[in-house]
Amino acid sequence: MLSLTRLNRVRSMDAVNDTMIVEAGDTLLQAREQARAEGRVFPLQIGSQGSCQIGGNPSTNAGGTTVVRYGNMRDLVLGVEVVLPDGDVWDGLRALRKDNTGYDLKHLFIGGEGTLGIVTAAVLKLFPKPRSVTTAFLGFRSPDSALAFFTLLRQRVGQDVAAFELISSTALDLVLAHLATARSPLSLRAPWYVLVELASSRTPEDLENDFHEVMQEGLEDGSILDAAVAAAEAHAMAFWRIREEISDAQTRAGGSVRCDISVPLSKIPAFIEEACASVLKIAPDSRMVIYGHVGDGNVHFNPLRPVFESAADYLQRTSTAITTSVDAIAMAMNGSISAEHGVGVAKRDELLHVKSRVELEMAWRLKQAFDPKNLMNPGKFLPRLECVEALKS
Amino acid sequence: MLSLTRLNRVRSMDAVNDTMIVEAGDTLLQAREQARAEGRVFPLQIGSQGSCQIGGNPSTNAGGTTVVRYGNMRDLVLGVEVVLPDGDVWDGLRALRKDNTGYDLKHLFIGGEGTLGIVTAAVLKLFPKPRSVTTAFLGFRSPDSALAFFTLLRQRVGQDVAAFELISSTALDLVLAHLATARSPLSLRAPWYVLVELASSRTPEDLENDFHEVMQEGLEDGSILDAAVAAAEAHAMAFWRIREEISDAQTRAGGSVRCDISVPLSKIPAFIEEACASVLKIAPDSRMVIYGHVGDGNVHFNPLRPVFESAADYLQRTSTAITTSVDAIAMAMNGSISAEHGVGVAKRDELLHVKSRVELEMAWRLKQAFDPKNLMNPGKFLPRLECVEALKS
Ligand SMILES: Cc1cc2nc3c(=O)[nH]c(=O)nc-3n(C[C@H](O)[C@H](O)[C@H](O)COP(=O)(O)OP(=O)(O)OC[C@H]3O[C@@H](n4cnc5c(N)ncnc54)[C@H](O)[C@@H]3O)c2cc1C
Ligand SMILES: Cc1cc2nc3c(=O)[nH]c(=O)nc-3n(C[C@H](O)[C@H](O)[C@H](O)COP(=O)(O)OP(=O)(O)OC[C@H]3O[C@@H](n4cnc5c(N)ncnc54)[C@H](O)[C@@H]3O)c2cc1C
Repeated sequence: MLSLTRLNRVRSMDAVNDTMIVEAGDTLLQAREQARAEGRVFPLQIGSQGSCQIGGNPSTNAGGTTVVRYGNMRDLVLGVEVVLPDGDVWDGLRALRKDNTGYDLKHLFIGGEGTLGIVTAAVLKLFPKPRSVTTAFLGFRSPDSALAFFTLLRQRVGQDVAAFELISSTALDLVLAHLATARSPLSLRAPWYVLVELASSRTPEDLENDFHEVMQEGLEDGSILDAAVAAAEAHAMAFWRIREEISDAQTRAGGSVRCDISVPLSKIPAFIEEACASVLKIAPDSRMVIYGHVGDGNVHFNPLRPVFESAADYLQRTSTAITTSVDAIAMAMNGSISAEHGVGVAKRDELLHVKSRVELEMAWRLKQAFDPKNLMNPGKFLPRLECVEALKS
Repeated sequence: MLSLTRLNRVRSMDAVNDTMIVEAGDTLLQAREQARAEGRVFPLQIGSQGSCQIGGNPSTNAGGTTVVRYGNMRDLVLGVEVVLPDGDVWDGLRALRKDNTGYDLKHLFIGGEGTLGIVTAAVLKLFPKPRSVTTAFLGFRSPDSALAFFTLLRQRVGQDVAAFELISSTALDLVLAHLATARSPLSLRAPWYVLVELASSRTPEDLENDFHEVMQEGLEDGSILDAAVAAAEAHAMAFWRIREEISDAQTRAGGSVRCDISVPLSKIPAFIEEACASVLKIAPDSRMVIYGHVGDGNVHFNPLRPVFESAADYLQRTSTAITTSVDAIAMAMNGSISAEHGVGVAKRDELLHVKSRVELEMAWRLKQAFDPKNLMNPGKFLPRLECVEALKS
């Protein structure tokens, strides 16, 4: 066990270069506030921001709700400092946007889940604060029409799409049931909702006008069923509250099978359709709590126990069958079985089924080259070498 | 020797996912045209587009004039297919924006200059065509005021800054001398120029208004000396022609020492000042041809022989001294001695002076793990292992 909480300084801040160097034990929330104090934004936004650390964020390549605009943590880190398994310290804290003088070694540690070394500091990319933000809650007939609207929106406002979060009606219902103060932003009931946020350097009027124009098209051609645009920050916060409470509401309800898949965006409607059909065959009364970062192709597909069945019974009866089936559907679409939640122990052995022998061997070559004594997170992240070798036959 | 020119198909195109899978032998120009045919943009823009290939672009992590908005080739590739030194084929052609199921192996090959495997195909990220483009040629007193304007512009139009290219007056003069049809876009002579391009999904009027507002501020506070905004595409093309001809004009003039450095943006003015002073001490009559992608911290710093000295004499007399000194100045600012041109053979041994032993050992660990027989580009990219080991003492 290793705690880096006392390694929590901001080592330097460069507002012109739009970077800051932060030690690994700083929490994400603190780092975001330190950036804000300089009039800058560090955009990574995840539910655990108060507890998770600047060392853990690259190690897990954290994602969250801003990926559609700013990318994953991998895209937000320009350099890292790492203590290697043999005790050497690699100073890779370069704050450069261009550097072609060798392999880009930081990517070994980003998303490496601590198996190749301990990240002790990172160079974070900062951004200007957007001048205007528009937030809306939209109702859709289907994931298909939500995706079509996303495509239209990207075409029309480009990089200004800052979040595009799909929410199934079942997910909304769950939040409304668990959160006394929450109410649906829309009067009409729709099978699917989208929380959309635009953030821009143009004036609020410009941005709103453009958004209204695109939204009007959607309302007129019938793809959008109903819409509420936040007129004040309090509304926007209430919309976001709904999105952010889904995961907790599920935990409190008990008995969810959690699948965190990604597919190419074009495959999202087909994925949701096939995966729902498959789950309803395995466990007909499951409640389809589905939500996620559709702008990145990432769906949290989390079937929930029927009201009349206990969490324990449901999970025992369905968990393996559902995970196997949903993951297989994602893989058949050239997707991923873990878009942002990583591998750890839970997904380790599943990799034997979804990765090629060649790819798993490549991973082991890295592990053996950097940590030949298997000191760092042994038993995690990589399926056992014997199992990989057995794939040969 | 290996030619991939016949491996040149577009394997698939997914306009909703904004990706296409292209084989390694396709030229960049062809790939850009194939994207355009689908109403999409593949943004990588480099002088060699007609000859360089989709396999070579990731292998060199190519940069060019659009990095400030779209990133380097590393940021434009979602997946690669690679033939490994042992003959295994790694199918890493995933078209996903999120995937946390193991080390992100593609980054070994991107920027790896062919030392770990042969890239045979790549998944390229596509973008919507911008609705409006504004191009301007601006005169500045100093790199300092150009940088201040860049910062202001980013704050005000954000991601819409599509290019921000600094050009020294000497560089402009050289183009004007060599290109009969070229003339300076500005009536006033300035010591420094910037070619700026904005590209946006908003209306042309919106974009131009915003740009004029920011430019007016710069003109009023005296940081911008003179400005020309392209009123027609032909003007914009003439501005770009000047920028693109610099390198050729230098080649034709003969006798340039070419340094391709990067530093944090905040250090650009100090770098240029110190490097100029140092070169003028080594070779007082050098002509300071300086240009580059200032929005990315990348300066092409290319002192040119005095008019009265032959190319051969100048290079023989100054080349090593200038390179050593300029690179040392960049390194003292935590910069890079090769921002986009790579390592190859020319920069290989210099790495021994600018990289730590730890970092060079890490690079060799990768090489030995993937290419233990040293089959791929032997003698290139990595300083000899004995030399790295000698750093220990
Ligand atoms: C309520 C909640 C909401 C979340 N929401 C999201 C979300 O929306 N999107 C998303 O992507 N993730 C989400 N996560 C998971 C998220 O990725 C992690 O919380 C965070 O990125 C990990 O940081 P941590 O400091 O908590 O790491 P830990 O949980 O402590 O560790 C995670 C892994 O990284 C390794 N590690 C940690 N620190 C280092 C270090 N300094 N050097 C090397 N290895 C290290 C550990 O060994 C472990 O393998 C959420 C988690 C919670 C609890
Ligand atoms: C006129 C001109 C202008 C240029 N302008 C720029 C610029 O503005 N910005 C910039 O960044 N670069 C620029 N470059 C360099 C640029 O990076 C290369 O032209 C291009 O990216 C390399 O592609 P290529 O196919 O020509 O590779 P080559 O030159 O053939 O090879 C380059 C390296 O990559 C390796 N390689 C090539 N193909 C593969 C493959 N399929 N798999 C594995 N390894 C491979 C080779 O072994 C070699 O080490 C310019 C070059 C020229 C000639």
